[in-house]
Amino acid sequence: MLKTIEHDGRRDEVAVEEPLEIRVDGEPLAVTMRTPGADDELALGFLYGEGLIDSARPAAPPADLPANVIDVGGPLLRDPGKRRFYTSSSCGVCGKGALEEVAAITKRAANPKGSDPFRLERELLAGLPGRLRQPGFERTGGLHATGLFDAGGELLLVREDVGRHNAMDKVVGRALVAGLLPLAERVLCVSGRLSFELVQKAGVAGAPVLVGVGAPSSLAIELADDRGMTLCGFAREGRLNVYCGAERAGG
Amino acid sequence: MLKTIEHDGRRDEVAVEEPLEIRVDGEPLAVTMRTPGADDELALGFLYGEGLIDSARPAAPPADLPANVIDVGGPLLRDPGKRRFYTSSSCGVCGKGALEEVAAITKRAANPKGSDPFRLERELLAGLPGRLRQPGFERTGGLHATGLFDAGGELLLVREDVGRHNAMDKVVGRALVAGLLPLAERVLCVSGRLSFELVQKAGVAGAPVLVGVGAPSSLAIELADDRGMTLCGFAREGRLNVYCGAERAGG
Repeated sequence: MLKTIEHDGRRDEVAVEEPLEIRVDGEPLAVTMRTPGADDELALGFLYGEGLIDSARPAAPPADLPANVIDVGGPLLRDPGKRRFYTSSSCGVCGKGALEEVAAITKRAANPKGSDPFRLERELLAGLPGRLRQPGFERTGGLHATGLFDAGGELLLVREDVGRHNAMDKVVGRALVAGLLPLAERVLCVSGRLSFELVQKAGVAGAPVLVGVGAPSSLAIELADDRGMTLCGFAREGRLNVYCGAERAGG
Repeated sequence: MLKTIEHDGRRDEVAVEEPLEIRVDGEPLAVTMRTPGADDELALGFLYGEGLIDSARPAAPPADLPANVIDVGGPLLRDPGKRRFYTSSSCGVCGKGALEEVAAITKRAANPKGSDPFRLERELLAGLPGRLRQPGFERTGGLHATGLFDAGGELLLVREDVGRHNAMDKVVGRALVAGLLPLAERVLCVSGRLSFELVQKAGVAGAPVLVGVGAPSSLAIELADDRGMTLCGFAREGRLNVYCGAERAGG
């Protein structure tokens, strides 16, 4: 969703950013700054990535507040009030705790190294960012994208948003509704950097491979390795780095 | 803070990402994924940007949990439990509500257009990203930066972080400790895109001018305009766009 503005004496387009309140059975749960559109997919993908739902369900604006509120049907799989990354007072807040929490909310076991037959050529992986359709980015420079690809490098699904986590949530939400989860033998590709949270969302959705145009963080690599995922960064100009799970990247 | 890893048979560096729990008088308030370092500044800047404190105070890890927890001394200026962007059930969640909330937590009144004598040449503004020192980014490609500049384009302060909001919080927190707030006749410059939240943080800190290397969102422009700020984007190669507050950008 784009908006036409004026600056420096000329017309231009910018990406729209507005808050969205996500409710469950009428109870406010979270607010995210997002680009309007596919709000139902965003809410479902967000809840799935947090381990709060594992099936599609109705998601729609409440009748009295149609704009910027989305209400998802419950119940949830666990109490959302539990503080993230905080497992016990003796553990404290640490990367290890964060990895353990993602493991706990991922129903599917991690892929032991080499346990699945999924293989892709490095050249194909490096070419995925070039296959991401980003019409909103091309017009504004202000949108992140996440794409879902099959093993042949065909783009199945793409979403753009001012928030990179939202673009991922929208793809996962759409995949949930379409019955495509878990994402076995599929590849997720993001237009930016690889943070812990993006790896979490991809991992909970069951994607064996995540590719990013930008750099990974330390914890993104640790989480991908812990979940048996293949993590690739700096995918540009036909090249890329493979940080873990290199057994799936041949050639 | 960087970490050396191995991938593709060679050594490389990545930016460290770890969770930080921010507490106030021992009570957990928020968790952010950040690059360790300057955690006290991060916590103080975050609380200042949310309108929860208006003065420096002690911030240190608790004795029993030294890693990844920071405890800030209270009291707070308002109840942090109040849901952001949600002013009343009749208003609902909307961009307008978000602007009003930032106005409410900004003690300083907005700058009416042309009310301050602060002027900068467009050429100087466009050159600020080139003056941001980003040693961590140069080695990892995985860090955002925020810099504080004076009216002559001299860099006063810079912070890097995996989270762009954290880099801004660290600069504002440092400025708070150093007695530099509000940031009258100063310019903030960020290495990436201009979101609503970055404009909020810069606006609450009193910066009249915010420059970004990337694109602004619609709500970022609306908020900057509402607060009487000058917002500049796409500052690259000696050029930039001025989205509002153009009276401060001459030449």
